[in-house]
Formats: sequence, C-alpha cells, structure tokens
Amino acid sequence: MVEHVRIVEVGPRDGLQNEAATLPVETRVSFIEKLIAAGLTTIEAGSFVSPRRVPQMADTAAVLKAFAGRRGVSLPVLVPNMTGLEAALAAGAREIAIFASASESFSQKNINCSIAESFERFAPVVERAQAEGVAVRGYVSCVLGCPYEGAVPLSRVADVAERLAALGCYEVSLGDTIGVGTPNAARAMLRAVAERVPMKSLAVHFHDTKGQAVANIYACLEEGVRVVDGSAGGLGGCPYAPGASGNVATEDVVYLLDGLGFETGVDRAAIMEAARFALEALGKGGAMRRGP
Amino acid sequence: MVEHVRIVEVGPRDGLQNEAATLPVETRVSFIEKLIAAGLTTIEAGSFVSPRRVPQMADTAAVLKAFAGRRGVSLPVLVPNMTGLEAALAAGAREIAIFASASESFSQKNINCSIAESFERFAPVVERAQAEGVAVRGYVSCVLGCPYEGAVPLSRVADVAERLAALGCYEVSLGDTIGVGTPNAARAMLRAVAERVPMKSLAVHFHDTKGQAVANIYACLEEGVRVVDGSAGGLGGCPYAPGASGNVATEDVVYLLDGLGFETGVDRAAIMEAARFALEALGKGGAMRRGP
Repeated sequence: MVEHVRIVEVGPRDGLQNEAATLPVETRVSFIEKLIAAGLTTIEAGSFVSPRRVPQMADTAAVLKAFAGRRGVSLPVLVPNMTGLEAALAAGAREIAIFASASESFSQKNINCSIAESFERFAPVVERAQAEGVAVRGYVSCVLGCPYEGAVPLSRVADVAERLAALGCYEVSLGDTIGVGTPNAARAMLRAVAERVPMKSLAVHFHDTKGQAVANIYACLEEGVRVVDGSAGGLGGCPYAPGASGNVATEDVVYLLDGLGFETGVDRAAIMEAARFALEALGKGGAMRRGP
Repeated sequence: MVEHVRIVEVGPRDGLQNEAATLPVETRVSFIEKLIAAGLTTIEAGSFVSPRRVPQMADTAAVLKAFAGRRGVSLPVLVPNMTGLEAALAAGAREIAIFASASESFSQKNINCSIAESFERFAPVVERAQAEGVAVRGYVSCVLGCPYEGAVPLSRVADVAERLAALGCYEVSLGDTIGVGTPNAARAMLRAVAERVPMKSLAVHFHDTKGQAVANIYACLEEGVRVVDGSAGGLGGCPYAPGASGNVATEDVVYLLDGLGFETGVDRAAIMEAARFALEALGKGGAMRRGP
C-alpha cells in the first residue's frame, strides 16, 4: 500500500519573512497560485504580525482575500495574539498557526515573554478561533537546540508540544529553528514527543543551515512522521549568515519522498517553477540550486 | 566505544576538475596543505589524464612533488591507463585511483570503451602499481543511476565492485555520479555490494545534485560503511546545471558524523577555511553555503 505524506509549504510565510526584499501582494498571490498548481494542499500564506516588525508580511489580509472561497487548499496564517487573530478572522482566515518555544531564552528574545506566559496568551486565541470553526496548527521552535541555551531537554520539547495539542492544535510542527540537528538526535526528539502526542498529529520542520535537513527528515519518516514542512526553493535563507541555507527546500523533500515510494500529490518540477518565480521576484534568480 | 569514520577528501581532484577555472599549482598545494591541517589523512591530489581534456589537473606531478616525503597523509592520484601510471610513478605517487562504470553506456561515453575493456586496460596498471608498492583505490561510477541508461541493476554494481577488489583495489568507492539516489535505494545498493566485497573495503561517494547526499550517507552509515568521500565546500558544482550542487560538502559530512558520535579526527571549521580559500581562488567566494 502506498503511504501518503502531506507536505506543508511554508515558503510564502517562513520563507519570505526571512528574505531582505518585500514582495507586493500580487506577486505573493501568484506564488501561492503556482504552489497550489504544484499540488500542495496546505500553504502558509502569511502572518498577522506588526508590519513594522515584519514588513515582508504586510497586507496578508489582501493575500488571503484573493483566495476567498477557494476550495481544496488550506491557507494558514500565523497569529501572535488576539489582535492578530481578529485581523485574520476579518480577512476570512480558515486556519491559523500559533507558536511556542521549547527554549526559555528564545521565547524571551523572540516573543518577549516566558513559555508559560506564551501559553496564557494563546489559550484565549485558540478558544476564540475554535468558536469560529477555525483550525489551529501549533509550532514548537528550538526543538533540537537554541541559539542562546544550546541543548534543549527532550522533556521540555515534549511538554510544550503536549500543551499545544491540549490547547486544541490539530497538528504540532516540531521546528529545528536554527538547523543544528542530526538524524539520530532528530529521531530521539520525535520519539520523546510521540510518547505524549500521537504521531499522526505531529509534523517536522527542518532548516538546512548545516546541510542536515533531508537526512533529519528521512530519520523522522523512519520513526513514523507523515507530515513534513518545506519551503519552495529553500526560500528564507538564514538571517545569521548571508547566503547560507535556511528552510529545507520543498523540491528536495519531494525528491526524497518520491524516492522512498511515498505518495505526496506534489509535482517537483512545478515546485521548482514556483520557486524560480519567487526567487526572480526577490532578485535572487541565481540562488536556485537544483536543476531538473 | 567511539567508532572511527575515515573521510576521503576529493576536492582537489573531483572537485577542482569540475570547476570552470584552473588553479595554479601553488594554490592547489596551499589548498591541500589546509586540508591536511584540518585533520584529513586521505586527500585525492590530482589526476594524470590529458591536460588537453582536463586542463584543471595539469601539472599534477608538480603538486605531488611539493609533498615528497610527507608522512601521515595519503595523496592518491587518478590514473586512466599505463601512460598515466608511469607519469604518476615518476612524480612519486604512493597511491593511485582507477575507475570503472556500472553502466555500459556511461563507460562508452566517459572513457570510450566497454566495461570489460576497461578492466583489460586496468589489469596491467594495477599489477605494475602493486609491483612498485603503490596502493590502488577503485571507483565505481553510476551506482544509483546513469544519465544515459537510467536505472542500473544492483547485480551489475556488485559485479564491477567485486572485479575492482579482485584486481587488487584495497578499497572500492561506490559513486552516485549524477546524484540521483535516495536513502533506501542507497542502502539496497550498498547491501548488494557488501555481499560480494567486505564492508570494511567499501566507501561511498555521493553528489548532492538533488539535495540527498547527506541523507544517503546517513543510510549507508546505518548499513555499516565507515569510509565516506567528500569535497570541501561542495567544490565541483555540476557540469549539467550551472550553480547546482555537485559533490557533497565535506563540512556537511563532518557535521553529520560529529552529530552521530563518530570520531573523524577532522575539524569542520578548518575544512570550511580551506574551502573558502579554494572558492575565493576560483572567484566564487559567495558560493560558500554554510556559516559557523
């Protein structure tokens, strides 16, 4: 029996928000259209954060509105708080994403509150979203290491993932935010979390900072995960090292899954076409690393 | 017990011969010096092929001579035939590498003879080398696919590897020349070969053309291989797609092995320093994809 793996495309959000240039709404809409045409069914479309802090995600409402009523694709948007949720609801969002960190220092530096406070902030957001019939996806950051603390205990990762699931997230994506993991560490982390949250509700989210993302995904597939985040063209770079790799490239994930015999419904060539479009719009046409 | 993995650095040969620019002898010598300083003990230093066909490898004799009498490091050079061997011996080579293809079409197009003819050509070369006390390493190309034939039968890969070992190669490096493999295919291939050649005499050589190299290496380590080829900085590009990835980057291999708890004796930061030196000399300073 052919097994299905769902790919969650994060290029239009996690990818573009880490690029220096800001793309206009119509370009972001075209990019998402191309990703839909490639067969993706979950595409993170933007975020409702302060446009002063993250100008790349300004006008996410207009992006969402371009897809109003569109069937067959879920377009989650990131929301940091109730204000963001209200804006997302007003724009017609049918799915949101929230985020917590497995590292106390990263939580403080990234969202300016403790892990516990972040859950207090998100509880009413999730409650309100669910009352509106809006699905909620959760992210855990720093699952294999933190830029400030170094190693992060597996039990803390499992705690945070379990709390997100308990809050009502239908899926929890485990993020190696700084791309420091290697395959056996990734396996051990996933196994620890899967003791507390069912594997079918878990996703993995790897960054290719040290070139390990595809290997880590392979190890996690062996452990049983069946949802994988990717960013077309590896969009997102790495804010710490110009030119360095950021999010794992969706086309590399598709190549891996095709080769392992999983069914994804996603066409690698069409993903690369979408990626080329976005990279050219960013003035980075030469950054495409894969050929046919 | 900490297990050792030996990394065979191929940047100064397989890497540089696929770059557009030709580096002068003194730059190639400095590059090799930096690789030795990084802890590598096997570094492919060049090849004795026609400088008209491969200008990047011209004057390999002068490169070798710069290391005459150097202890603690093996500097194999590629030789295609008896003429190449004579030149290598005259330059003081203590180790050579020979190559055969697992694909009949690739053999014809690459070295202009059948697989059987390539063994007829190499038999006296290996005999002569061994009479001079020179070690011989063998390469098999196209072990996971051929650009002309597509799939290559595992039995053919195993045959060619076994013949190289029988000829007298102390080690046989299994090359995914066009970078098309994925981890389970790599596992199956290695397993098929290891039924005919002891695992301790096998190495794996992956290209990152589709972003799968590190994952493939991980799978092969799980199968028991303990020798891995790499090219500092991913030197080598891909002749078919400008800007695309070629050889797996040695720094990514070291990161993987460190993370898995293997001992290599190789320092990742020093490898990146050597890679940066070579990339800058090639006028490709911006091609360095990894940060610290």
